[in-house]
Amino acid sequence: MADVAVIGTGVMGSAVARACVGAGLSVAAWNRTPERGVALAPQGVDWCATVDEAVRSSPVVVLALLNYAISRQVLEPAGPGLAGRIVVQTASGVPDQVEPLATWVADAGGRYLEAAILNYPQTVGTEQCFTVYAGPAEWYGEISPLTRALGGTALYLGEDAPYAKAYHSVSAAFYYGIVNTLLECSALATSLGVPLDDFARSVPLYQPGLQHTIDVGVELMGRGDYRYEQAPLTTHIDILRNLSAVAEESGVAGSFLPVLRDRVQRALDDGFRREHVAVLHQQFRATPARRTEGRGEPTRLTP
Amino acid sequence: MADVAVIGTGVMGSAVARACVGAGLSVAAWNRTPERGVALAPQGVDWCATVDEAVRSSPVVVLALLNYAISRQVLEPAGPGLAGRIVVQTASGVPDQVEPLATWVADAGGRYLEAAILNYPQTVGTEQCFTVYAGPAEWYGEISPLTRALGGTALYLGEDAPYAKAYHSVSAAFYYGIVNTLLECSALATSLGVPLDDFARSVPLYQPGLQHTIDVGVELMGRGDYRYEQAPLTTHIDILRNLSAVAEESGVAGSFLPVLRDRVQRALDDGFRREHVAVLHQQFRATPARRTEGRGEPTRLTP
Repeated sequence: MADVAVIGTGVMGSAVARACVGAGLSVAAWNRTPERGVALAPQGVDWCATVDEAVRSSPVVVLALLNYAISRQVLEPAGPGLAGRIVVQTASGVPDQVEPLATWVADAGGRYLEAAILNYPQTVGTEQCFTVYAGPAEWYGEISPLTRALGGTALYLGEDAPYAKAYHSVSAAFYYGIVNTLLECSALATSLGVPLDDFARSVPLYQPGLQHTIDVGVELMGRGDYRYEQAPLTTHIDILRNLSAVAEESGVAGSFLPVLRDRVQRALDDGFRREHVAVLHQQFRATPARRTEGRGEPTRLTP
Repeated sequence: MADVAVIGTGVMGSAVARACVGAGLSVAAWNRTPERGVALAPQGVDWCATVDEAVRSSPVVVLALLNYAISRQVLEPAGPGLAGRIVVQTASGVPDQVEPLATWVADAGGRYLEAAILNYPQTVGTEQCFTVYAGPAEWYGEISPLTRALGGTALYLGEDAPYAKAYHSVSAAFYYGIVNTLLECSALATSLGVPLDDFARSVPLYQPGLQHTIDVGVELMGRGDYRYEQAPLTTHIDILRNLSAVAEESGVAGSFLPVLRDRVQRALDDGFRREHVAVLHQQFRATPARRTEGRGEPTRLTP
């Protein structure tokens, strides 16, 4: 018997397997392309020829596949072997995909936990790793050798499995917002003659301001009162007009800048002047009619 | 005589004046709305009734006004008084606005330095303050009592004054990218039932991954070789399709997500698969014809 079985040994699955071995756990693994799994053997991972063999080898089965469809397809042959195992799903996806897979695993006798690894594969097993989990607390407690092996911060989000994926979706969207910002600002930097590595080197220096924008913005959105004298809307419109013009003249095809400029202008037209830019939040929201179709009461984190 | 004159005592100018007083400098100040300047008197700032008086009171004149047009308009009456002074311009703007003001100041006998404060007013005078300067090195050396008083990190960017504004523009664009991301992700979070404060509290936990994306992305863009196995394009398209669908279903009106999805799809169609998302950089860039109209060789930072 192994301590952990890893299904899918792509970049993330391999990192999970190695981190577990590094933490002294015995690890079984399976991958659709055998080469990728066999390559882990010298690092102390037991290679399994079938997914069924891998699943039966261990009480904890980590799914590290691309998405939910592939996860379901890959697990199919292992059906009866799932009885009693805890399945920890780490694939990317959206909340609505969780329930069907969780139900299928439960019907096969397995116990389902939803999880997400919110950092790059190379951080797995280090202090920088950040993982979240949701599902029955007792089962989460049972996988502590795994959560410890992955390292860094493990956050248990409560009983509601789909919530882990809602949380993951927001984090992933935030990641893609940074990617989008990086790409557009790099194009702008190139056009303005600012070396990209100097730009990148300085980001940590103004990072406190970026975090401050997030913290204050979220606080004001929660409060529903957006008055904020440190950097009110009247200071933003001038800057956004200038930046949008520079981006357009440089041929930088984005672009969040003119879109944000127009949103600020609309807020000013609506009479907001001394408010924080977070007041634009309302413009990004669904119409009230759509909002009532949402997921209902937020589930609170259990840190 | 004062050590520093501050022209414009809005939120940022007041912060500069207070930081200078806190560092033991004598400070004169002027503001169009007298109330804001007078309010600083109990904190040890000498209030001046005219801009001319403020300018003549000190060898270093900090301009902390909203933009270049207002800066020029405000300085106009002080023309002859500028002779020999170092004018430190901190207004937001774009590179092309620098030269006309710098020339006007030089014609009046003043010495011009371009500057930017890349953080919130409340960080001025603390370790978190981040300021950049460009212009003749000798003049930059002369204002060291001011740069030290503002605290944190002061970066001298070289002789080319407009470059400080190019640098500031890219930083400001990055800031607005974060703002845009925050607003859109907050709308998504609300729609998915993720409490905003939990979302905000976790950002520092996945911050290393965000910084990693910036560092690796910039490195690959500089190299022009985008192969990157840790998180290649093939892993992004699935996630971006899902997130875009979730955002659209939730009525989140943004949106960088579908735009980025389409860019990733175009790159995949072009045959990129195992490349870092930074390969999309080219899609944000100006056409080559526009690029040749750019600012020429990048000016390197002098850290």
